[in-house]
Amino acid sequence: MKRLTHVDESGAARMVNVSAKKPTRRRAVARSFVRMKPATLKAIREQRVAKGDVTAAARLAAIAAAKRTGDLIPLCHPLPLTHVAVDIRLGDEGVAVECTVETVSRTGVEMEALTGAAVGALTIYDMCKSADRWMTITDIELMEKSGGRSGRLKRRA
Amino acid sequence: MKRLTHVDESGAARMVNVSAKKPTRRRAVARSFVRMKPATLKAIREQRVAKGDVTAAARLAAIAAAKRTGDLIPLCHPLPLTHVAVDIRLGDEGVAVECTVETVSRTGVEMEALTGAAVGALTIYDMCKSADRWMTITDIELMEKSGGRSGRLKRRA
Amino acid sequence: MKRLTHVDESGAARMVNVSAKKPTRRRAVARSFVRMKPATLKAIREQRVAKGDVTAAARLAAIAAAKRTGDLIPLCHPLPLTHVAVDIRLGDEGVAVECTVETVSRTGVEMEALTGAAVGALTIYDMCKSADRWMTITDIELMEKSGGRSGRLKRRA
Amino acid sequence: MKRLTHVDESGAARMVNVSAKKPTRRRAVARSFVRMKPATLKAIREQRVAKGDVTAAARLAAIAAAKRTGDLIPLCHPLPLTHVAVDIRLGDEGVAVECTVETVSRTGVEMEALTGAAVGALTIYDMCKSADRWMTITDIELMEKSGGRSGRLKRRA
Amino acid sequence: MKRLTHVDESGAARMVNVSAKKPTRRRAVARSFVRMKPATLKAIREQRVAKGDVTAAARLAAIAAAKRTGDLIPLCHPLPLTHVAVDIRLGDEGVAVECTVETVSRTGVEMEALTGAAVGALTIYDMCKSADRWMTITDIELMEKSGGRSGRLKRRA
Amino acid sequence: MKRLTHVDESGAARMVNVSAKKPTRRRAVARSFVRMKPATLKAIREQRVAKGDVTAAARLAAIAAAKRTGDLIPLCHPLPLTHVAVDIRLGDEGVAVECTVETVSRTGVEMEALTGAAVGALTIYDMCKSADRWMTITDIELMEKSGGRSGRLKRRA
Repeated sequence: MKRLTHVDESGAARMVNVSAKKPTRRRAVARSFVRMKPATLKAIREQRVAKGDVTAAARLAAIAAAKRTGDLIPLCHPLPLTHVAVDIRLGDEGVAVECTVETVSRTGVEMEALTGAAVGALTIYDMCKSADRWMTITDIELMEKSGGRSGRLKRRA
Repeated sequence: MKRLTHVDESGAARMVNVSAKKPTRRRAVARSFVRMKPATLKAIREQRVAKGDVTAAARLAAIAAAKRTGDLIPLCHPLPLTHVAVDIRLGDEGVAVECTVETVSRTGVEMEALTGAAVGALTIYDMCKSADRWMTITDIELMEKSGGRSGRLKRRA
Repeated sequence: MKRLTHVDESGAARMVNVSAKKPTRRRAVARSFVRMKPATLKAIREQRVAKGDVTAAARLAAIAAAKRTGDLIPLCHPLPLTHVAVDIRLGDEGVAVECTVETVSRTGVEMEALTGAAVGALTIYDMCKSADRWMTITDIELMEKSGGRSGRLKRRA
Repeated sequence: MKRLTHVDESGAARMVNVSAKKPTRRRAVARSFVRMKPATLKAIREQRVAKGDVTAAARLAAIAAAKRTGDLIPLCHPLPLTHVAVDIRLGDEGVAVECTVETVSRTGVEMEALTGAAVGALTIYDMCKSADRWMTITDIELMEKSGGRSGRLKRRA
Repeated sequence: MKRLTHVDESGAARMVNVSAKKPTRRRAVARSFVRMKPATLKAIREQRVAKGDVTAAARLAAIAAAKRTGDLIPLCHPLPLTHVAVDIRLGDEGVAVECTVETVSRTGVEMEALTGAAVGALTIYDMCKSADRWMTITDIELMEKSGGRSGRLKRRA
Repeated sequence: MKRLTHVDESGAARMVNVSAKKPTRRRAVARSFVRMKPATLKAIREQRVAKGDVTAAARLAAIAAAKRTGDLIPLCHPLPLTHVAVDIRLGDEGVAVECTVETVSRTGVEMEALTGAAVGALTIYDMCKSADRWMTITDIELMEKSGGRSGRLKRRA
């Protein structure tokens, strides 16, 4: 069985030692989804200009959060990100956020992509909550990762 | 139809003006869930000491994130929180996080509770991802809120 | 002659003591300007969608910076802002940023408005610098302030 | 015509992908100016000890802000700075700030130098505003940059 | 025996609930000491101008850290500080830092004063460590506190 | 006599230029101690579960602070840490914190280890201060460092 690498033998949390690893190019893609009432989605769609800014705010908040992952998640290494992009789509039942992160570093960027996707979703929630009180943020998931020992991995549909 | 209060008539994002409101005691409770493989949950359960630290890390990361909400979510007001508590439970299909936040302020703390719950879940994900590559964070939801104009509201089951 | 209130008699910097003051509603408006080549302005104007995001990014960066003023400017008090709005306009010679900040607090928000205006301008600069290498950020100024001992004051034209 | 590299074809903001670039030594110098009344400059000059601390505060705030540029400017990459120096001079019409930044990285440090110069000027403003209400921060400009594809570039007088 | 108020009955950490308390004026003074070789102290003393900046840097770092205490110490409440002052003295065996903090709030500022004193000492250490490799930071202590339930308390000599 | 490298010839603070240095693997270990009343130590020991969380909180706060050293100590370089571990022990007269930090970088991590040890001690203080008002944090010291020009150095007993 796989070990939990963030805890040592005595159970104490520590930041995994990656000093001996070589920096390689790494990439991760994560997504999230904000499920909302049709009326809320309609409100976003119809206020065309407003929508512009709602998605812009979510995108920029996601990028900022991805950069700050090492400061938010206790055992993440601080990483010099080399690329962050965020794609936001209005669907039938809500808004989907996809966050892509790259680095050239000693460890992967899954948490950076997931944190970006989560904070993007929280920002959409915040901007719509006056119109829809009980939305749900769901399906925060890693879609793919590449670089490092395990090569390229994709989530199965 | 309710308006999106974070965007003005031209669609530009702004921080809602709450200068004229009176500070009142406000409270919000939010939850999140990390769905994982049974083997991962078992690993957490059996490494008793480790589990202590995994939940402690998630709890402390959630509290820290709740305090930093105004810095993470673009249009949130910075609020002087008067209480944050985080409850973490191991269930059959994963780990549940519940975050309770209080303030005495001019606006509510829904986003603080949701941000705490989300970052708590991301921390659990981070600490287990070496053992379980495809977990899902789901059901980030407001459970109840009180204080302010709308009084006490609870999510329907 | 007016004294420099941030330095004590021996010249050592300190955060001015406002403990004995009563919280009152306060407001400040500041502006900044990014002077650029006509071709850059034209590029912004013609890429309609792009412009949406350039101004959205500047607006959100200005709001975030205003909230973080107490963390950036050494002797500023951390203040619970109750409103931030940012207006961005494309003129003939560049882009103008205007940042309005409110609080209910023991000290004023001039620095918050000025910091917001400055970081909004730096963001515009950052987003256009691939097209225009030698822009100038200029005219960062307080336009008006109200609340507190000195009442309402406006900059003379 | 040059493209705006921070926006993709659909106009959405993204952090430019520099993963494939080689780290090289890079340097940028930027300046800013705080224009003030002669009496304010005189006050700074005559309170010799006080001046020491005003310039020290501006210098340290500029260094701190340069280090935090990736956190303040939405699409800047977080960069491991290898040197920051700040020169502050009292002139006839105000105070000049010059900020020099170096890194060994995949992208340049213009924004770091400009952000340092801007926050240094804001700090001087903050420390003098009790004596001079209507100062102007002006001429925030890149003076030179080197490293990277474009080699060494200097601003023309 | 006094209880540890930061842990609930099950031992889980939480931020103490101060929602029901009234804001009152509170003050705390803490100190720290950096013990160093006589030659290091002499170096600081003789480089008169340098010393100006060493103490200025320590003072400003202490003020910044006091403001950020709620972000550094996991269970501290974020508090709107109304005053921070830092006194730095060169003694016979090293450098003493004293940090005074005030707020008008629902909980005290002991941790803010102690954090300021500690970071002030760390800054002095950082600035002298090229000249003295084995300094010791010691005697980080609360000297007095006032405001709140327990009134004014002073450390016994 | 050794020079103070953080100040230039005129005494102005600057971040030392390490651009020309090669990145090498570096490591530092620092410690701190919180001296407390026997009754406080006993309270920690007997509340077994509570103790779990007190040490967990101190450990995680120390790790977070080590990562943020470049943001707290004015002239420290921001460094991409590759490992942080924190050991906390209950002794006869108080609690000892030991913080080990590694990086692969152009400069050492003494300040990161010392900052981690100091903030770990402050966190223990915060969590016990309701039971013990006059604790002392002491003996914040570098224990060993390796990597860089000076090779491996250990503190003499």
